[in-house]
Amino acid sequence: MPFPTRRDALRLAAASAAGIAFGQEPRTIGYCIVGIGRIAAHYLAGMKTSQYSRVTALVSGHRDKAEKTAAEFGVPVGSIYNYENYDAIAGNKAIDAVIVCLPNSMHPEYTIRAAQAGKHVLCEKPMCTTVADAEAMIAACRKANRKLMIAYRCHFEPMNLRGVQLIREGRLGAIHAIESINGFNIKPGEWRINRILGGGGPMMDVGIYSLNACRYLTGEEPVEWKGEMSTIDRDGRFAEVEENMSWTMKFPSGVLTSCQTSYGVSMPGWYRVRGTKGTLEMATAFTYQGQHLTAKIAGEPAIDETSPLRDPAHFPLEMDHLAECIFRNQEPKTPGEEGLRDMRLMMDIYRSAGRA
Amino acid sequence: MPFPTRRDALRLAAASAAGIAFGQEPRTIGYCIVGIGRIAAHYLAGMKTSQYSRVTALVSGHRDKAEKTAAEFGVPVGSIYNYENYDAIAGNKAIDAVIVCLPNSMHPEYTIRAAQAGKHVLCEKPMCTTVADAEAMIAACRKANRKLMIAYRCHFEPMNLRGVQLIREGRLGAIHAIESINGFNIKPGEWRINRILGGGGPMMDVGIYSLNACRYLTGEEPVEWKGEMSTIDRDGRFAEVEENMSWTMKFPSGVLTSCQTSYGVSMPGWYRVRGTKGTLEMATAFTYQGQHLTAKIAGEPAIDETSPLRDPAHFPLEMDHLAECIFRNQEPKTPGEEGLRDMRLMMDIYRSAGRA
Repeated sequence: MPFPTRRDALRLAAASAAGIAFGQEPRTIGYCIVGIGRIAAHYLAGMKTSQYSRVTALVSGHRDKAEKTAAEFGVPVGSIYNYENYDAIAGNKAIDAVIVCLPNSMHPEYTIRAAQAGKHVLCEKPMCTTVADAEAMIAACRKANRKLMIAYRCHFEPMNLRGVQLIREGRLGAIHAIESINGFNIKPGEWRINRILGGGGPMMDVGIYSLNACRYLTGEEPVEWKGEMSTIDRDGRFAEVEENMSWTMKFPSGVLTSCQTSYGVSMPGWYRVRGTKGTLEMATAFTYQGQHLTAKIAGEPAIDETSPLRDPAHFPLEMDHLAECIFRNQEPKTPGEEGLRDMRLMMDIYRSAGRA
Repeated sequence: MPFPTRRDALRLAAASAAGIAFGQEPRTIGYCIVGIGRIAAHYLAGMKTSQYSRVTALVSGHRDKAEKTAAEFGVPVGSIYNYENYDAIAGNKAIDAVIVCLPNSMHPEYTIRAAQAGKHVLCEKPMCTTVADAEAMIAACRKANRKLMIAYRCHFEPMNLRGVQLIREGRLGAIHAIESINGFNIKPGEWRINRILGGGGPMMDVGIYSLNACRYLTGEEPVEWKGEMSTIDRDGRFAEVEENMSWTMKFPSGVLTSCQTSYGVSMPGWYRVRGTKGTLEMATAFTYQGQHLTAKIAGEPAIDETSPLRDPAHFPLEMDHLAECIFRNQEPKTPGEEGLRDMRLMMDIYRSAGRA
């Protein structure tokens, strides 16, 4: 899977800005948002600046909330669904694709039902909570001949792309080591500390950013991995999922990576890549805005760049990418298989760390 | 083993500055430097500002070099030894202790022969290259009723002590995670890339700083550890030892640590400690000067302190500590057992990483 370069991103942005359409008529993709919680709010807000994406339907268990959101974003009341009548989206021609914004363990059902209803799917990360579910999601979308894209924002974020570009151009020389962290102090009562809904703790939710970054930064798939996990649990939040996790991975070229994640302490997303010619560091690496890239490369001026994008700018990049893929009948840059690879790795790392 | 606090270090420094002696007369310890290579130069330079330490003898295989060094530091020509007549130090009353500055695998022989000659020993890190050797060194010094101290500089370095103090005082809250790196791009031809002399690669030589830091920062002994190693080797330097290593450790309180070391890329010594109340970061963590501590603690002003010490100031701290221990018949803060613990861990991590 080729990683989009920064040039790709800029070209796409320029094309979008110029209003270039695919085919004769300007076209858009109608999205049905499935689950209108916290992450959905970013997609909805991002619709306003997207080129090819508009919200045409909502799915929610809370009718009142859905009606309020529908009114705000111009969704017809007739295009509000709940989890029981969800399959009726099949008959709604204004819906081309769904965006699955539900708790992790619900991703498979609502992805597979969407594919069976003839809709493309943009599914939040982590893709699901088991390898079998990931495989079933891919199979269902393939059988229905629908696109399945996993919402890996950083594959579309300009500073992360810039980092990948510097590495691919060989500017850092031979990469030897990557460190990455991502974690935060989670509030009590969140669904993300429920083992069934989350499928795991910080590893599944935010550690996945570090894991995925090691893969896109190297452009390789790890051949070995080893993990440790621990629960300190000062206040009973971690009865079901791990609180802390650290793991190391080895890549075919010899790159070694060290990652940490936590739900117990603040651990702002960060990575540092060390090569024979230089070091690249990314702060605020994985959040909705503020990516800050610095690099020191032998014989070159220091690099210090901060993303100008402001939340929710990452979300139209994702939605418009899937729109393009649908228009052109191309595979998304972050297909189901990308999610499956992370799912396999996370399960293997959990096993290595002794998770029951 | 209690870790010296910053207060201890300051008190000792004040006592030293005031010229307070132990007992009636000002006393000093006469040191014999064994091996007068790169590290020995720091000890020798450090003698000038030490309170209780002076160089009274040298051991070298190079008579010319030894005579030149002896002249520079006021060592009598009659107190120059070579590796054959080394045991004759037993008869030299001006020698209280030796400082073993040889390649790693030679530490055991010259420590044990020193103990048998009735001399105390300050031995460079890593203590040796096998667990059995470490045990033999401890046993020999115990049998001879001589002190054995391993030269862990950071246990005497003010900024590292300050970091330990902040953690012990609970200022960072409950510690959850530590990251640490230490490595550099080694020159071809160094004895440190010879497996027999070095006993291993960067792990033994510089990774040990990160390993040891995780132990002194937590004040705990790890209960689990897992490592990966790799050799990229662009130029044939790494036929005998690993080029890169990463490992993770779990401590009884639940702290997880991630460490990396390398002989292939620059990796300036660094650690970051994350607790529930704050984060502490140490740059230039392990070198001869320039330790830079920053900490952000909830509700407190930011901490930003740099060590005023300049190389070779760390070395008299070590030599004078052993001198004090000899005067007072106390156990050094970093006895042979401290080196043995690191040796056991390093060998276990190598095993985990699949070293033959």
